[in-house]
Amino acid sequence: MIKLIRHAGGWGVVRGDQVLPLPGAYASTADVLGAGVRSAREVLADPDAAAVPLAGVTPLNPVPGARVHCQGANYRTHMVESGMDPDRAFNMLFTKSTASLSGAHDDIATPAHVRLLDYEVELGIVIGKPITGPVAVTAADLADYVGAFVVANDISARDVQLPQGQWYKGKSYRTFCPVGPYLCVPDRDEVARWSELRLTLSVNGRLRQDALAGDMVFKPADTLTEFSQLEDFAVGDLLLTGTPGGVALQPPGGIAQKIAGLLPEGKKWELFVKGQARSDAYLKPGDRVVTTIRTDDGALDLGTQRNTVR
Amino acid sequence: MIKLIRHAGGWGVVRGDQVLPLPGAYASTADVLGAGVRSAREVLADPDAAAVPLAGVTPLNPVPGARVHCQGANYRTHMVESGMDPDRAFNMLFTKSTASLSGAHDDIATPAHVRLLDYEVELGIVIGKPITGPVAVTAADLADYVGAFVVANDISARDVQLPQGQWYKGKSYRTFCPVGPYLCVPDRDEVARWSELRLTLSVNGRLRQDALAGDMVFKPADTLTEFSQLEDFAVGDLLLTGTPGGVALQPPGGIAQKIAGLLPEGKKWELFVKGQARSDAYLKPGDRVVTTIRTDDGALDLGTQRNTVR
Repeated sequence: MIKLIRHAGGWGVVRGDQVLPLPGAYASTADVLGAGVRSAREVLADPDAAAVPLAGVTPLNPVPGARVHCQGANYRTHMVESGMDPDRAFNMLFTKSTASLSGAHDDIATPAHVRLLDYEVELGIVIGKPITGPVAVTAADLADYVGAFVVANDISARDVQLPQGQWYKGKSYRTFCPVGPYLCVPDRDEVARWSELRLTLSVNGRLRQDALAGDMVFKPADTLTEFSQLEDFAVGDLLLTGTPGGVALQPPGGIAQKIAGLLPEGKKWELFVKGQARSDAYLKPGDRVVTTIRTDDGALDLGTQRNTVR
Repeated sequence: MIKLIRHAGGWGVVRGDQVLPLPGAYASTADVLGAGVRSAREVLADPDAAAVPLAGVTPLNPVPGARVHCQGANYRTHMVESGMDPDRAFNMLFTKSTASLSGAHDDIATPAHVRLLDYEVELGIVIGKPITGPVAVTAADLADYVGAFVVANDISARDVQLPQGQWYKGKSYRTFCPVGPYLCVPDRDEVARWSELRLTLSVNGRLRQDALAGDMVFKPADTLTEFSQLEDFAVGDLLLTGTPGGVALQPPGGIAQKIAGLLPEGKKWELFVKGQARSDAYLKPGDRVVTTIRTDDGALDLGTQRNTVR
C-alpha cells in the first residue's frame, strides 16, 4: 500500500517515519492517483531520495473538492443503539458537504448553536474509476473502483441532524469531516482485505468505537452498484461506508420512542435534546479524539487522526 | 433578461421565436455566464445575426455538472398537505444528485421498482458568485449571487424518499431533475422581482400547482446565508427553493399519522405505499407534464418544460 500525504508544501509519500517529497504539482485527486502514484514508486525505489521527518508534517485533507457520498446506519450495532430497525432492507444513502472536509490533525469546530456534537469513525473509499451510468460492481471488480482507502470521521450535530429530519445539514458544518492523514493506495489483493480493517475511535483516551469493516450490512460493491442508478462518481470522490456502534447518541428505547411519537414534533425534539444533553458522552471543547483504521496483523494501516474539539 | 439555450450544437441566445447561435464553446457555466453573456449581447445587437427557429431546437440541461442543493417543504401549502408542521422554525436542506439533471423536453424515466412517482415545480437559482466561507447575504446584495433563474422539476419517488427517511435517493434517479429550457440571466432589477414569479405545473392539461415564489417561507437571501455555514458554491451550482402545494402526495392526516406511528416502521410504510397507490394523482407512463415560471405581467418568463413520463 502506498501512503501519500498532502501538506502545505505539496505531496509526499510516506516511508516509515519519513516523508519523501514528490516532484511536481497535481491538479486533482485523479492526477495524484495516476502520475502521483507513478512518481511515488520511483521515489520509493531511490535510496538517495530526499526525506523529512513525518512528525514535522501536518496532513491536509487528501481529497480536496471531493463530493462526499454516505451510507447511514450501516452496522447493526449502530442501528440498534440508534433505535433503528436493524433488519431494514434498504441502504440509506445521503450526502455531506464538500465544505465539511478537513485535515486529520485539524480542530473540530463546534458551531455556536450546536449542543450535541458526536463522532463516527468510518472507512472512506476514494473512487478510482469514473461512474457515469448504471454499473454492476462485483466483489471481484471492486478493486477497479477503489482508488484509495482513507480514515474518515463523520462528525454529526445530533440536535440539528435528527430534529430537522434530513441529515445533510447537521453533518455538513465546516470541519465536520476530518479525512486522512493519508491517501492509502492499495494493491488489488489489499483491496480484497477491506473487511479485515478494524475501525477504532477514542475520546480522551477512552475507547468508544471498535469494530471490523466486515460487519457492514451493505458492502461496498453492492453500494456502488445501487449508487450508480442515481449518481455519477468522478475519480477522487469519496464514499463513507457508515459507522459501527459506540457513538454518543443513545436515544430512548422502543416504547419511550413510541410514546414520544404521540407528541407534537417540536415538543418531541425539545425533550429529546434536553434528555441527551444530560449525557456526558457528547464531545466538549478540549476533548481529544483519536481515530484509527488498520488490520489486526498491522499489514494495512490507514493511519491515525488526532483532532481536538474547540 | 437574457435567455441562453444549450443544445446539441452549442449555445444560443433566444430572440422571440428564434435562436441566434453564439460563436465559440464554453467549458463551464461560469464561462457561459461571463463570456457567453457578453457574446449574447453582441449577437442580439447585430441585426444581421444568423438565426434558426426556436421550435426546431431541443434544449439540453443548461447547468451540466451542477451540484444540486435543495430546500424541502418551503411553502406552507405543501407543508400542510404533506403532514408537516407549517410553523417549524428551521430551513430543511438536502441535496439531489448531479446525475438527476436532464433537459426541459426530456422524458422522465420511472425506475422499475418505483410506484409513487411525483412532481414538484421549483424556482431554480443558478449561483453567479462563488461562496467559499460564511457570508451574510441580504435582499439588497442577492443579485450578486444570482447568476440565472431556471425552471426546475424536483421529481420524487415517494415510495423510496419517505420510507427510507433520507430524501436524497428517492429524488436523485437519472432524469429526476429536468432543468430549463433556458438559462435566464436577469438584470439586477429583475432579480428583485423574484417573488412575483408564478410557478405552475399541469399534468395532461389539468393544473396541479399554481403559486407565487414570494410564498416561500425561507427566502433566497436567508437560505444562502445559512447554506454558507456548511457548503461552498461554485458559479453554476444550483439552488432549488422548494415546491408549493398540489403534488400527488397526500398522506393521512394528523391522527391517522399518530396511530401509524405506533406500528413497526416496516409495517407503517407498507400501509402508506398501499394507501397512496390507490390515488390516481401520481404520474404514470404516458403522462404529459407542463411546467412554467413567469411573472403575471409576462415581463419575466423563464420558459416552459414539456416532459413525458415513461
